[in-house]
Amino acid sequence: MPSALPLSAALLSLLTASPKAPAPAAAAKDSGPSTQVAGQLIGAALSEGHAYARLAELTDGIGPRLSGSEGAEAAVQWAKRSFEADGVKVWLEPVKVPRWVRGQESARVVASERFREHPLSVMALGGSVGTPAEGVTAEVLEVRSLDEVAALGDKVKGKIVFFNHAMAEAADYGKYAGLRTRGASVAAKSGAVGMLVRSLATASLRSPHTGAMRYDEGVAQVPSAAVSVEDAELLHRLVAAGSVKVELKLGCQTLPDADSFNVVAEVKGREKPQEVVLLGAHLDSWDVGTGAHDDGAGVTMVMETARLLSKLKPAPRRTVRVVLFMNEENGLKGGKAYAEAHAAELANHVAALEMDSGGGKPQGVAFRSAPGAEELVRPYLKPLEALGAAKVLEGEAGGADISPMMPARVPFVGVRVDASRYFDVHHSQADTLDKVDPQSLAQSTAALAWVSYVLAEVPGVLPRPEAPPEKEFQKAPAAPVGTPKPSAP
Amino acid sequence: MPSALPLSAALLSLLTASPKAPAPAAAAKDSGPSTQVAGQLIGAALSEGHAYARLAELTDGIGPRLSGSEGAEAAVQWAKRSFEADGVKVWLEPVKVPRWVRGQESARVVASERFREHPLSVMALGGSVGTPAEGVTAEVLEVRSLDEVAALGDKVKGKIVFFNHAMAEAADYGKYAGLRTRGASVAAKSGAVGMLVRSLATASLRSPHTGAMRYDEGVAQVPSAAVSVEDAELLHRLVAAGSVKVELKLGCQTLPDADSFNVVAEVKGREKPQEVVLLGAHLDSWDVGTGAHDDGAGVTMVMETARLLSKLKPAPRRTVRVVLFMNEENGLKGGKAYAEAHAAELANHVAALEMDSGGGKPQGVAFRSAPGAEELVRPYLKPLEALGAAKVLEGEAGGADISPMMPARVPFVGVRVDASRYFDVHHSQADTLDKVDPQSLAQSTAALAWVSYVLAEVPGVLPRPEAPPEKEFQKAPAAPVGTPKPSAP
Repeated sequence: MPSALPLSAALLSLLTASPKAPAPAAAAKDSGPSTQVAGQLIGAALSEGHAYARLAELTDGIGPRLSGSEGAEAAVQWAKRSFEADGVKVWLEPVKVPRWVRGQESARVVASERFREHPLSVMALGGSVGTPAEGVTAEVLEVRSLDEVAALGDKVKGKIVFFNHAMAEAADYGKYAGLRTRGASVAAKSGAVGMLVRSLATASLRSPHTGAMRYDEGVAQVPSAAVSVEDAELLHRLVAAGSVKVELKLGCQTLPDADSFNVVAEVKGREKPQEVVLLGAHLDSWDVGTGAHDDGAGVTMVMETARLLSKLKPAPRRTVRVVLFMNEENGLKGGKAYAEAHAAELANHVAALEMDSGGGKPQGVAFRSAPGAEELVRPYLKPLEALGAAKVLEGEAGGADISPMMPARVPFVGVRVDASRYFDVHHSQADTLDKVDPQSLAQSTAALAWVSYVLAEVPGVLPRPEAPPEKEFQKAPAAPVGTPKPSAP
Repeated sequence: MPSALPLSAALLSLLTASPKAPAPAAAAKDSGPSTQVAGQLIGAALSEGHAYARLAELTDGIGPRLSGSEGAEAAVQWAKRSFEADGVKVWLEPVKVPRWVRGQESARVVASERFREHPLSVMALGGSVGTPAEGVTAEVLEVRSLDEVAALGDKVKGKIVFFNHAMAEAADYGKYAGLRTRGASVAAKSGAVGMLVRSLATASLRSPHTGAMRYDEGVAQVPSAAVSVEDAELLHRLVAAGSVKVELKLGCQTLPDADSFNVVAEVKGREKPQEVVLLGAHLDSWDVGTGAHDDGAGVTMVMETARLLSKLKPAPRRTVRVVLFMNEENGLKGGKAYAEAHAAELANHVAALEMDSGGGKPQGVAFRSAPGAEELVRPYLKPLEALGAAKVLEGEAGGADISPMMPARVPFVGVRVDASRYFDVHHSQADTLDKVDPQSLAQSTAALAWVSYVLAEVPGVLPRPEAPPEKEFQKAPAAPVGTPKPSAP
């Protein structure tokens, strides 16, 4: 609309009409103030390039930021400074985190009559114990599942158990992540002396992918590492033809727990400040690559959303709180600490959302709530049509760091992004800035900003879901820590 | 044609007619014995899986085989045994080769006020000197060409020169390979203390790609390494914003020359045994990955061609000689030794062909000859139609190892393969068996076997090309040693 034309009073009133209690159908159709705010948020997210600039600061300026590391501490300070620079209220909340450090690591197939020595491209799993300096050398036993280990009985004793699998696309992650997280203890229970797992990856150039593992109580702790997809294929071929020995040397170790922080920022609500829409992402990353997709992208999307919402006059009806969680990757201490410290407030958390599937294009929204969420939000999705994200998607919303809020019945929302190439680089040296497309990041930031505003502004609130059965929730942290993510059912 | 139907004597005679001196047009149309041999060669190559099985032996059984290494020696013995097992006459011809060994290697961007320390994913270039144990630390100077270095004059002094470029597809290799091979000495002439080059690659997951470099006489020898594409992008971003220091530690060194061999095998011609059709590939590989595409694929294609041709009764008119050259990657000593040892025979080399662009699907044939080659060969391409390879392609045929035969005016033939993804893995840890598609390898083997048979059987011979001007030929070995390949003009 040419700005020089005088607007009729009626039209002006229509364009600037309050979003309070619009009839949903009308809101989707009219061009009231909701639409103006949409234009403001989406326009800024798409044109100012703030999220990507921040992502470059975080990845190039700070780099990897595993919990307890100097990089993690630097990231906390950077995030605090950045919110302050944006004029967004920010504070730190203490979290005690595990501190695991990688050392020198290598592995090789020991030469035999059938083949010469082969180096293996390996990466210790986060949380693994190291090996003695001379390494652990043992015959390899290839298996395809946790159950198969138990079925093999005595054959496991003294072996390095190699968990192979058939991950081919992002959706397979959930199927096989349990091999990585639980394989070591399952193998050790049957007497294994070490564990290898095929990297959970959808692309490989001999590139291993790390990730969290945990030891069961009372079971021997055996060294555990991911091998590249290529080396998994090599092991498979060699094992198929006869006995294969591998030497594994891991210099990793666990140091005493460290002091760290969740970074919390918020834009106070104008009318219901006690009602909180929580936007989460995790500030920590693995120690390889620079955590650009995982989860630098999510961090910068929620930071930019806070910045854009903080500039709105009037402020949104409810409080929008951004939490940059610490320790999603290897302990979830930040998520647990938040739920604990804010237990009294959780009944007033009207929605929680976590961005942790990389910086791909937006695809739509999902919910975890009682019936009625879709009806509340769908009328406001029209501004996302041009971004291809005006859809309500199948499947429950979730997020590792927000999962500890499930017993408090906090409704979850997901702004889903295209994660089809996410596992090409996830948890590997290749998760670097160049892999994040600035346009996609800006588009998902725009979708997030708008959905966040809708959640904070819409007159009603999402119907709260039932609390999960005690047992199910107890099991949740034991599942692939760090990544229900795209593949989680 | 239903095989149960009785064939007329005339038709039978047509189907089994001798290939001697067919009118080219008729040969392309009729179903004479040429067609029968085509069916025999192509059928066996496509159905028996021999080339791929051999490739698995070479890559899984032996692995990397850099000149002078135990792997190279094992590969020589394996090739000899394999030809013997196939009943193909084989012998070894001595070649003195350089022996360069990689050591521990690492690099990092030194922390500054603007950024924290970053590890760089590097790989020493083959032939590079090592650094002192404490490494070489200097400011990075980014350039885009060899000429730019000279133009920068004194600014180069004391710097690590970083050659950046824009390689995006296989065809770009030739444009930028000179930065890798010649960059160190060009930089050192202006006082540089080290050299980095962006990996020559069409895909990257933080994966550096090595390759040959050489030092000019009388110029300081500075340590030289490839950085991954991601790290090249990182350096570019950091340098754009201010001063950047890099520490480079390379443990590589050059040991005394070693004794090695070209492996030569042949199928004697029935009528003109003194006329030789030479099929080449190189047995050596880089010390990273297992040289599956480069050049295990070529090696197994030419070996399988020899095996299939050796079973023909009668044998082809001319001798088909297979040469598995040693030291293509870092010295071309095998190619030079062959041309020297066989100088007296080269006038009778009626064609030479080198397979060294990986194991992709066949695309067609190319020549380097005087006018007339196409007319001689085209009538026989029909059997390759179903493989999509019955085409005469633009551009000259060539090959690093056969290039020393150019002054002797040996005509070159190329059986071109799809190399569009070749530089995803070329000279990197990712050049492994899984990257070679068995079907594509079998199809290219089939095309090679048939074209080789045609060259050995066709009544005429390829018109010999002019010798290149002395100067041009002298320069050839200085160009990207090891890989004119797909991208070479």
